[in-house]
Amino acid sequence: MATVPKTCKVILAESIARRLLEEVQETLRSIGNGKPRLAAFLANDDPAAVKYAEWSQKTCEENGFAFDLRRVDKEALEEELRLANVDGNVDGIIVYYPIWPENVSQDNYIKETVALEKDVEGLCFRHLSNMYHNARYLDPPANLKKSILPCTPLAILKILEHLHIYNPILADGNRLYGKTITVINRSEVIGRPLAALLANDGANVYSVDITGVQLYTRGQGIKNHRHQVEDKPGWGLKDVLPISDVVISGVPSESYKVPTELLRDGTVCINFSSYRNFDGPAIKEKASIYVPSVGKVTVACLLRNLVRLVANRPTDSDHQQARKDAFTEG
Amino acid sequence: MATVPKTCKVILAESIARRLLEEVQETLRSIGNGKPRLAAFLANDDPAAVKYAEWSQKTCEENGFAFDLRRVDKEALEEELRLANVDGNVDGIIVYYPIWPENVSQDNYIKETVALEKDVEGLCFRHLSNMYHNARYLDPPANLKKSILPCTPLAILKILEHLHIYNPILADGNRLYGKTITVINRSEVIGRPLAALLANDGANVYSVDITGVQLYTRGQGIKNHRHQVEDKPGWGLKDVLPISDVVISGVPSESYKVPTELLRDGTVCINFSSYRNFDGPAIKEKASIYVPSVGKVTVACLLRNLVRLVANRPTDSDHQQARKDAFTEG
Repeated sequence: MATVPKTCKVILAESIARRLLEEVQETLRSIGNGKPRLAAFLANDDPAAVKYAEWSQKTCEENGFAFDLRRVDKEALEEELRLANVDGNVDGIIVYYPIWPENVSQDNYIKETVALEKDVEGLCFRHLSNMYHNARYLDPPANLKKSILPCTPLAILKILEHLHIYNPILADGNRLYGKTITVINRSEVIGRPLAALLANDGANVYSVDITGVQLYTRGQGIKNHRHQVEDKPGWGLKDVLPISDVVISGVPSESYKVPTELLRDGTVCINFSSYRNFDGPAIKEKASIYVPSVGKVTVACLLRNLVRLVANRPTDSDHQQARKDAFTEG
Repeated sequence: MATVPKTCKVILAESIARRLLEEVQETLRSIGNGKPRLAAFLANDDPAAVKYAEWSQKTCEENGFAFDLRRVDKEALEEELRLANVDGNVDGIIVYYPIWPENVSQDNYIKETVALEKDVEGLCFRHLSNMYHNARYLDPPANLKKSILPCTPLAILKILEHLHIYNPILADGNRLYGKTITVINRSEVIGRPLAALLANDGANVYSVDITGVQLYTRGQGIKNHRHQVEDKPGWGLKDVLPISDVVISGVPSESYKVPTELLRDGTVCINFSSYRNFDGPAIKEKASIYVPSVGKVTVACLLRNLVRLVANRPTDSDHQQARKDAFTEG
């Protein structure tokens, strides 16, 4: 008799984060650029932001990075960011949102204030636009500077890779082809970019929030390059959960639970809310794999992005080349 | 822009067979038992059987095995098998079926005539019964002699492993949990055992033939150990293909084609018929992975089984132990 486990496989973020951090340290050693410094701006007193800042600090310090937590008044934030943008000792900048929960455009203004080359969260328009267009570099056609993906969506992609949902036998850019994924959350920072990234890799993605369901795809067949979005009027979880291979939930509410009875046997379930969106005991009888939280992988991706920003910076020889080119062409 | 391939990934049996044969050679070296001999009995003139015999001979000879093709009259077959059963120079026996296409029970009689310990195709009742009960050993509770699985179903499991359809992050015996698979063919030698094996590994399997659809599962949830079968009256390909992650077809007809328009985008398609059951150009626009034939993997599995039979044989020290036990206990 083969041994079949009694409940599903629970995968903790820590085990995935550890592998990512090993890769980060290796890249850091290979670029040999000392101890990169992350400046973290806390201008609210959201307990989730404080928690994220503490984790970030601990992980930075354990992995050879310097972490400066800067508590600032929200009115002083823009000026502080402008100083950090030009401070040669600061390699990356993170800001904890929301700062003005009642005013999205004010937060967006702050996101654009962070210098592109220090935006460790990939929230500047240029990074986001690249992501939505499935473009990987900031400097075509040279293609030396890689674009930055937002940390939580990137963390969820890395988790799906670890769980073998990305099929490595398929070509890069096509490894989710044939998979149906539901993302419950359509925020601008996580749910929407995540749905687009998954669709760009070939999945059919149902993006669900209280306003309804949208289907993100790369279009008919396997030839399209950029995702398409289609409204599904009248659809709800009852329509999308029973056909989903993977369900990713991030509803910021203690009482919200994904209805277990609508999931198919063997669904892969990932929770990125700071509350438990899946019903603990029941989900383990139904899912094949359950990832109860993603935070530690998000922090690992933050450091991965920071190393990428350092690697993106022009080296001294690049500067010499640029000066030479300027003289030759001028 | 990420590079997305224009058509699906076509995986040839040869590449998978090569890896399996390397493993077989390694096992053969490790048990150090000379050059195992396979006796192959051809008592019909089915061109597919002749082709399979030729491939088997070539693969045997290339991989350090001896292959005896014995063309016999069907009336002499039983007596020839009895001689081979007790011939110390014969390590494994294969018979090419059907011999009496009009008389299944006569073929079944021949299957039982082959000695259990030389049955390289796993077609004796004891091997088949073990397979249907998800039992892995012939000699519980010692569990030293592994049961043999029929070559083509085993080849298809090995292909699904290679294609990462088996998720290695899940526990052994549960790696297809959550997958929906359609098998078009319910023959006693391939389709039915294959459906049972896939269900025992956790998949929902729709078994389709001209008489209708059956659903093979391990029952509700993830705790059951042995597959269950349920008739689905009135169901057809129109019901099962659109919900299948994997479609495996083995219809022995040149004109038969799986209706491409019913498949979901990104289905994994495997053909084990000697005819092409999938519509060549169209399937490459629809599937994510397409395996056009499995024969070479089947032959590799035949050699894998032969090595397993050799490894199952009692060694001299086993014999001494058995004699000692007999004296002690008697």
